[in-house]
Amino acid sequence: MIIVLRPDAKKKDIDHIIDKVKKLGLTPMVSKGVERTIIGVIGEEDVLRVQPLEAYPGVEKVMPILKPYKLVSREFKPEDSIVNVDGVKIGGKRIVIMAGPCSVENFESLLNIGKSVKSSGALVLRGGAFKPRSSPYSFQGLGEEGLKYLKDVKKKTGLKIVTEVMDTRDVGMVEKYADILQIGARNMHNFNLLKEVGLSKKPVLLKRGISATIKEFLMSAEYILSNGNFNCILCERGIRTFEDATRFTLDLNAVPVIKKMSHLPVVVDPSHGTGKWDLIPAMSKAAVAAGADGLLIEVHPSPEDAYSDGEQSLLPEKFDCLMKELKLVAEAVGREI
Amino acid sequence: MIIVLRPDAKKKDIDHIIDKVKKLGLTPMVSKGVERTIIGVIGEEDVLRVQPLEAYPGVEKVMPILKPYKLVSREFKPEDSIVNVDGVKIGGKRIVIMAGPCSVENFESLLNIGKSVKSSGALVLRGGAFKPRSSPYSFQGLGEEGLKYLKDVKKKTGLKIVTEVMDTRDVGMVEKYADILQIGARNMHNFNLLKEVGLSKKPVLLKRGISATIKEFLMSAEYILSNGNFNCILCERGIRTFEDATRFTLDLNAVPVIKKMSHLPVVVDPSHGTGKWDLIPAMSKAAVAAGADGLLIEVHPSPEDAYSDGEQSLLPEKFDCLMKELKLVAEAVGREI
Amino acid sequence: MIIVLRPDAKKKDIDHIIDKVKKLGLTPMVSKGVERTIIGVIGEEDVLRVQPLEAYPGVEKVMPILKPYKLVSREFKPEDSIVNVDGVKIGGKRIVIMAGPCSVENFESLLNIGKSVKSSGALVLRGGAFKPRSSPYSFQGLGEEGLKYLKDVKKKTGLKIVTEVMDTRDVGMVEKYADILQIGARNMHNFNLLKEVGLSKKPVLLKRGISATIKEFLMSAEYILSNGNFNCILCERGIRTFEDATRFTLDLNAVPVIKKMSHLPVVVDPSHGTGKWDLIPAMSKAAVAAGADGLLIEVHPSPEDAYSDGEQSLLPEKFDCLMKELKLVAEAVGREI
Amino acid sequence: MIIVLRPDAKKKDIDHIIDKVKKLGLTPMVSKGVERTIIGVIGEEDVLRVQPLEAYPGVEKVMPILKPYKLVSREFKPEDSIVNVDGVKIGGKRIVIMAGPCSVENFESLLNIGKSVKSSGALVLRGGAFKPRSSPYSFQGLGEEGLKYLKDVKKKTGLKIVTEVMDTRDVGMVEKYADILQIGARNMHNFNLLKEVGLSKKPVLLKRGISATIKEFLMSAEYILSNGNFNCILCERGIRTFEDATRFTLDLNAVPVIKKMSHLPVVVDPSHGTGKWDLIPAMSKAAVAAGADGLLIEVHPSPEDAYSDGEQSLLPEKFDCLMKELKLVAEAVGREI
Repeated sequence: MIIVLRPDAKKKDIDHIIDKVKKLGLTPMVSKGVERTIIGVIGEEDVLRVQPLEAYPGVEKVMPILKPYKLVSREFKPEDSIVNVDGVKIGGKRIVIMAGPCSVENFESLLNIGKSVKSSGALVLRGGAFKPRSSPYSFQGLGEEGLKYLKDVKKKTGLKIVTEVMDTRDVGMVEKYADILQIGARNMHNFNLLKEVGLSKKPVLLKRGISATIKEFLMSAEYILSNGNFNCILCERGIRTFEDATRFTLDLNAVPVIKKMSHLPVVVDPSHGTGKWDLIPAMSKAAVAAGADGLLIEVHPSPEDAYSDGEQSLLPEKFDCLMKELKLVAEAVGREI
Repeated sequence: MIIVLRPDAKKKDIDHIIDKVKKLGLTPMVSKGVERTIIGVIGEEDVLRVQPLEAYPGVEKVMPILKPYKLVSREFKPEDSIVNVDGVKIGGKRIVIMAGPCSVENFESLLNIGKSVKSSGALVLRGGAFKPRSSPYSFQGLGEEGLKYLKDVKKKTGLKIVTEVMDTRDVGMVEKYADILQIGARNMHNFNLLKEVGLSKKPVLLKRGISATIKEFLMSAEYILSNGNFNCILCERGIRTFEDATRFTLDLNAVPVIKKMSHLPVVVDPSHGTGKWDLIPAMSKAAVAAGADGLLIEVHPSPEDAYSDGEQSLLPEKFDCLMKELKLVAEAVGREI
Repeated sequence: MIIVLRPDAKKKDIDHIIDKVKKLGLTPMVSKGVERTIIGVIGEEDVLRVQPLEAYPGVEKVMPILKPYKLVSREFKPEDSIVNVDGVKIGGKRIVIMAGPCSVENFESLLNIGKSVKSSGALVLRGGAFKPRSSPYSFQGLGEEGLKYLKDVKKKTGLKIVTEVMDTRDVGMVEKYADILQIGARNMHNFNLLKEVGLSKKPVLLKRGISATIKEFLMSAEYILSNGNFNCILCERGIRTFEDATRFTLDLNAVPVIKKMSHLPVVVDPSHGTGKWDLIPAMSKAAVAAGADGLLIEVHPSPEDAYSDGEQSLLPEKFDCLMKELKLVAEAVGREI
Repeated sequence: MIIVLRPDAKKKDIDHIIDKVKKLGLTPMVSKGVERTIIGVIGEEDVLRVQPLEAYPGVEKVMPILKPYKLVSREFKPEDSIVNVDGVKIGGKRIVIMAGPCSVENFESLLNIGKSVKSSGALVLRGGAFKPRSSPYSFQGLGEEGLKYLKDVKKKTGLKIVTEVMDTRDVGMVEKYADILQIGARNMHNFNLLKEVGLSKKPVLLKRGISATIKEFLMSAEYILSNGNFNCILCERGIRTFEDATRFTLDLNAVPVIKKMSHLPVVVDPSHGTGKWDLIPAMSKAAVAAGADGLLIEVHPSPEDAYSDGEQSLLPEKFDCLMKELKLVAEAVGREI
């Protein structure tokens, strides 16, 4: 931690800070420059981080040096983590494709989509039973009934299931049906929900909040790991910027950045990230080339009849075509699908 | 709703859309231009809004004309709403100041701050018993014990209490102690929590998410009103931008914009909005001049010992001084404090 | 300057950096922590700033401590600067209002607006003869003819003139007619143009770029001062964010932030900042309450006939009414208009 | 153009607008809904676009339907444009790599880098003789001397030259040495400079402004084409967002979006886009997979001695290695390098 003092800081202000640092069991190193004094602090930075140092008299700014997260960091665990989803490994050489409708609508349609994406090479079925919708007047999902359909399709196809949980009260129920508990972008800062899934035995897929920095994203993952659940998959799904040609700005830079900072697997959701079905193929290939460990893609046989997000769903035949292209790109970067 | 077709849209695509619109009980108005065809739809726009029109063949884009919210809109209720908080009216001529520590730390200190801000003119005491913290290793709040302290300080000072609720499971408990249920910025899109407080009898103070547009902010308020609770206060607290000289960018433009679009009262939180105590006085005066109905200000007698957010807390004497200045600005714009 | 090394930095990497720092005549202070080594550098930070330290082997990040600007900083000149515009002082107790049309359209109309805003209390006339337009097909301004009209209206009304210069080749010409040379937001990073106006004797009004941090804004002003022109006025005019209810997000936080960091006067342009005439009154009052030294307001007697930006122009009678309200707010914060 | 009226618009307001539209030679189509009236306008939208319709009484908002650009649009020219740079074709099957130092520093070093990148497969040499620098105290480039070095290296290596021009006064000079005139991100809205290069016979590489929407980017290209120069290459180089783990957010979504909207070739600059050399390989591969027609990569044999941007330069051996990987990805998506 570096504490930069104001040019007009008084001696008693400086002494007061040095005193405080020592009382916390840390070692202050004072450098008096021509323009201002700087205090470097050696020792366990976490002890200091919780102190509101910028509120001390004479302090201009405080610059943390160490990262605020631990368990998720590459330093903590240098080798890549592989998350085992009921036999499907995420984070290894094989890039895992998760596909399916935005919302679970009915059993028949879900089964058809499941069979179709499986035959194209997907290993995980995605589909929402609880839907976070901006409008209280929009379709809110089938709830537990939808979860049952998902589990039934798993039985019939062998696909693993990823589905969202939105409420601390529902974690126990969703756990019974899902293979991966998804935390949506809007709940990335719902800390109580993070704690609950951190206590679960099931793998968690954590989506990045639309205005979350990568550091904040990793801090939210730290909530999950620090509660005991190390089976955490990170998902880039687009951030909010000024650009309006896409619904969000899918931030593929996040893939190599997270790989550098963390050992956790990273997947990409180009459907929500771009909001336009015709951009999904290009951005899926780019995500794989950038090093993603998996993709989440919305597929619907009749987008115009989808209960939600039809405009960002691929037709099954387009998805099948894309899978063939993705295989070539995966091989070009030393991976497989 | 305006449906703009691609220049290469085929006749059967256009007929298909017209057909769909008619089946929904709406009236399509087709305009064939030189470059492309446009279909205007007359009637209840909500019926159409839930259709994924951009997924239809031949469609280039869809432009909604009506607003997606109703109950919160000025059109629905032209006159200003006044929220009655156990006798204190928010949204009328008097600008209501809510002040107090970021976190409730202990009874003694809370009572002292309460007495102090009351004597300076505050009518509501703010203080968090449940704290959303980015790090799992930071102080998470005193929980129900903190709520009890708040209620006790209310008894001794007459100040009304605003405090945050973060979990659907806690709404019933927080309701017993608080006069206003606060929904934090990180939970503005926690729809299940919005529904729960929408079912409550207590007024709600809804903070704008750091990356929420004003339209999305109003949609979240619509969740509360549509569940039956019309006592909703909106709070601008800073949005995330590229600027890093302030912690967030307090968006005062939101005040006159919301006043134009909605009948709900609007308050401003310059403490979280700027993240720096020395910017609070200027931005508080600006908020009042812009038309805010109230302010939420963090006050702490010893910011360097605060459990959270010390760097954005005013000393009681600085707060007292600010209150005097605010009175003058309030009068200059025809209000009072 | 603080140089933070990677946890895996080797001894020879560290020695290499220490060596380099010493060769530059600076003093390295090495702190070896448990997790990583940190090198603080004492001395003239500018010498080091131009070195690409992050490219050195073993370096994780580099954190500058001092500010990259000098002449514009409060440390360089603690008291407020007052810019004298042909007798009108900007930066003193009096808040200076600059008003007029977006574009100069013809002499008659300009004179009428000039007379009108003067009678309402404006001291400076604004109006563009060179117009930066997003579309090559839009009206691009009257050029030198427009400048002549401005000078003629100055003669008849006594108003000082502020007008934009967009091209290094035009600085000499615009200087002959204008009292203040305006650098538009789109040219805040046009460094050659900054150098040219830095060599001028005329005061400069520098607008903040729509995506410029306040630090970058001050660096652009440093270009002007370092070329010899200390008569520089800074203008906040809205930044680009995700919010689309306003054309830009007028960032009033910039006013107190700049006042803290710099001695230069700060004015606010609520017309461009919001893009909506009906938001101008609220945001003008807020700007004055926040501490602005002046305002730039677009006024047009027939906004629907304006050649540009009619939607953000006030009618003269609305402007007159606003001036009366602004006087009250100015007095409430110890200023005058 | 769709004109949406306020719910309280009066009949005379509506009549006034209809009148205006007719006078402009256009056809208004009026739809009276339950809540509000909407006027669709058929005909040449450009005539109307320059009218400040939102300033008309009774108007709530105006929604343009057609795109504001023409010559750059896919509709204007459905097939891909190929820009011929002195024999090197940009926009065809071959992906063109442009590499070299950020700044031209001296002849010897430039020649060595040139030989090196050529042997790795680059076809164009990049290097700045005029450097836009945020600080007036940073190295500003060698000017014409640097241009001479570039031309000399071209003679010795056969590499084509791309270099930046920053000032309208320098276009004639830079044209004599360069094969491609580069307009930097900071000048994307320097309209006079755009006009000058639009009058040139040399191809132009236009970089996207850091806060420019894709639509605005295309409008700036329209300035170049409408002045007669159709040899325009668009370059995505990162936009400004809240994320600070990268220097900018390289927006690869722009590649497929621009391909959909325009016929012009698109190249990507991962060096400036990310600001970190260790992210360049991943993002270069992703750019190629997304469909880019070329890449601009900074290469320097001793990044720590570079005069600028050393932290985002690749070592020649790393660049060589990347070229081999890029070839595989290019083939996987049906292209070649």
